[in-house]
Amino acid sequence: MITLTVELGARSYPIVIGSGLLGSSGLLDPYVVGRDVLIVTNELVAPLYLDPLQQLLGDCRVNTVTLPDGESTKTLETVNQVFDALVAHGYGRDCILLTLGGGVVGDIGGFAAASYQRGVDFIQVPTTLLAQVDSAVGGKTGVNHPGGKNLIGAFHQPRCVLSDTDSLKTLADRELSAGLAEVVKYGLIADAELISWLESEADAVLQRDPDHLHHVVRRCCEIKAAIVAADEREQGQRALLNLGHTFGHAIERCAGYGEWLHGEAVAAGIMMATTFSERLGRIEAADTKRVRDLLAKLRLPVDPPQVDPREFLAAMSLDKKVVAGEIRLVLLDALGSASVTADYPSHELVDLLSAQFIR
Amino acid sequence: MITLTVELGARSYPIVIGSGLLGSSGLLDPYVVGRDVLIVTNELVAPLYLDPLQQLLGDCRVNTVTLPDGESTKTLETVNQVFDALVAHGYGRDCILLTLGGGVVGDIGGFAAASYQRGVDFIQVPTTLLAQVDSAVGGKTGVNHPGGKNLIGAFHQPRCVLSDTDSLKTLADRELSAGLAEVVKYGLIADAELISWLESEADAVLQRDPDHLHHVVRRCCEIKAAIVAADEREQGQRALLNLGHTFGHAIERCAGYGEWLHGEAVAAGIMMATTFSERLGRIEAADTKRVRDLLAKLRLPVDPPQVDPREFLAAMSLDKKVVAGEIRLVLLDALGSASVTADYPSHELVDLLSAQFIR
Repeated sequence: MITLTVELGARSYPIVIGSGLLGSSGLLDPYVVGRDVLIVTNELVAPLYLDPLQQLLGDCRVNTVTLPDGESTKTLETVNQVFDALVAHGYGRDCILLTLGGGVVGDIGGFAAASYQRGVDFIQVPTTLLAQVDSAVGGKTGVNHPGGKNLIGAFHQPRCVLSDTDSLKTLADRELSAGLAEVVKYGLIADAELISWLESEADAVLQRDPDHLHHVVRRCCEIKAAIVAADEREQGQRALLNLGHTFGHAIERCAGYGEWLHGEAVAAGIMMATTFSERLGRIEAADTKRVRDLLAKLRLPVDPPQVDPREFLAAMSLDKKVVAGEIRLVLLDALGSASVTADYPSHELVDLLSAQFIR
Repeated sequence: MITLTVELGARSYPIVIGSGLLGSSGLLDPYVVGRDVLIVTNELVAPLYLDPLQQLLGDCRVNTVTLPDGESTKTLETVNQVFDALVAHGYGRDCILLTLGGGVVGDIGGFAAASYQRGVDFIQVPTTLLAQVDSAVGGKTGVNHPGGKNLIGAFHQPRCVLSDTDSLKTLADRELSAGLAEVVKYGLIADAELISWLESEADAVLQRDPDHLHHVVRRCCEIKAAIVAADEREQGQRALLNLGHTFGHAIERCAGYGEWLHGEAVAAGIMMATTFSERLGRIEAADTKRVRDLLAKLRLPVDPPQVDPREFLAAMSLDKKVVAGEIRLVLLDALGSASVTADYPSHELVDLLSAQFIR
């Protein structure tokens, strides 16, 4: 078990990573003793981990909201269901929410915590690789609008993140790979060594060797904790974490939310950003090939779904990184280094999309 | 025209108070030049002040959402309509919302700004006395849940508050009085002199003498700015601003949102808190009489609607100031001084409610 810290002054919090955490009594006591607790989880995760989590909560008054599984539940209506439960149980400003599940559950529960009574505490207990390496850390919460991904939300930091790597054992193969897309992202923006390591260790990672998974979660959280501490509200470098996401969000939107897993869309999006970086002369063709081979090895899609390029461009334009009408993109300067920029000829983006979508 | 400042470090902002502000070109330029603007207003205010406000916005791209009037629109569904408009117009993170109207419009528009793309800028342009003296300042935004008032929301500070006291000329008498309930509140918690002044100047205030209205708005904003600067997130003294509100929210809920104006419910709530303070021996009977006489003189209700005391107590228990099941109340120590406390015998509260509701 290791503990990292997201350094945010009075709002600093620990990320606890390890095996068997959901069986370690006392671990949550500093945050929950004697409090009203609402667990937000989903129908897939609840049968597996709800009981052990409740064991950790001792004498708290615990209630649970169990949501359907999947990205299509990530709506304002679902958040309202969580409000209904909080009100129905008469929970006050001193209650605490626990999100048990993947990124969708964490985003919904976190936004409910951000908005109930203008903000109550919450704890993230991520059970998917994607949530453990990425979405549970850093305080981004929110839901989708029919017009775009994560368009409604809040920055609201958890009091603690509890990542039990044992929960990754029960993850579907497709979900494991989806999480690895974000791992590749961390390597590409900040850690060339992580890319090399993934290239050589892909098999052991896919076979879920515990030490390999622990390394992956730890390394990604180290990178993310440093970035969030330096730029909590994404005024600058935090935007690097969106590598592949402007393309990826457009893929999710055009395919219909839930058709592609978020991580799968990010993988194809990373590939588009990488290809665009090469097209602009920022990286070599050999770099692009390495990224493509790695993603494929990790059983991730490397091509977007076939849609009308104009529809795709319109979907990209709704991204939160659009400022004054310019589509800012995260582009690679090398494997392990990236920049946020809108400084590219706009016809190049149109050409890229035309090339990607006529095949 | 005077400018006060809410001192919140990097998020400090001005409150501009004066006559004819909506005709003062250039006043909003520091905040809006060249930006996408969404004005959130209502059907009563739009015909009066939308044109002059748009004149202030020069070459901005301006769109407007016009809501129905009244507290019953203060729901999550209405906030979602604002999101729909923002998305439909393709507004990005760099847009700015302007709320033009009373407290309801400000609370809805402010919460939409807090949550769109995890937070965009907004400006309050309050046109009611209640909003100018209270709700437009301090960053509390949110909507009602069927289970309770303002249960869903965020702290999100505006970039600027623009209070044109001329807009008070068109206010309905009932709305003017509702705003004066909050003015009495400021006097009772922080400024005995304001109470004496109101007692002697009530007629001129009700006749809307411009200098008197200017004094009222200025003095309340001075008090609120100092309190918010000291305690933005209501960890301590900011709770004093809720004098009469725990009772008042229960009145609004029991009567049905929109039946009583918020300020009217606050007036009857202040009277209940004052009566309770006397009952507990904190103030004299003569103090209670002064408060009752002043509220009546300002044409405000001094008695709650007749409901079942148990229903009323249940409604009070949903208040955001409830901690660990205790109903914390703001009680008077004198006219001009108050405390937040749960330190009273609970049967006294039951007795108070029984006495208030059998008449």
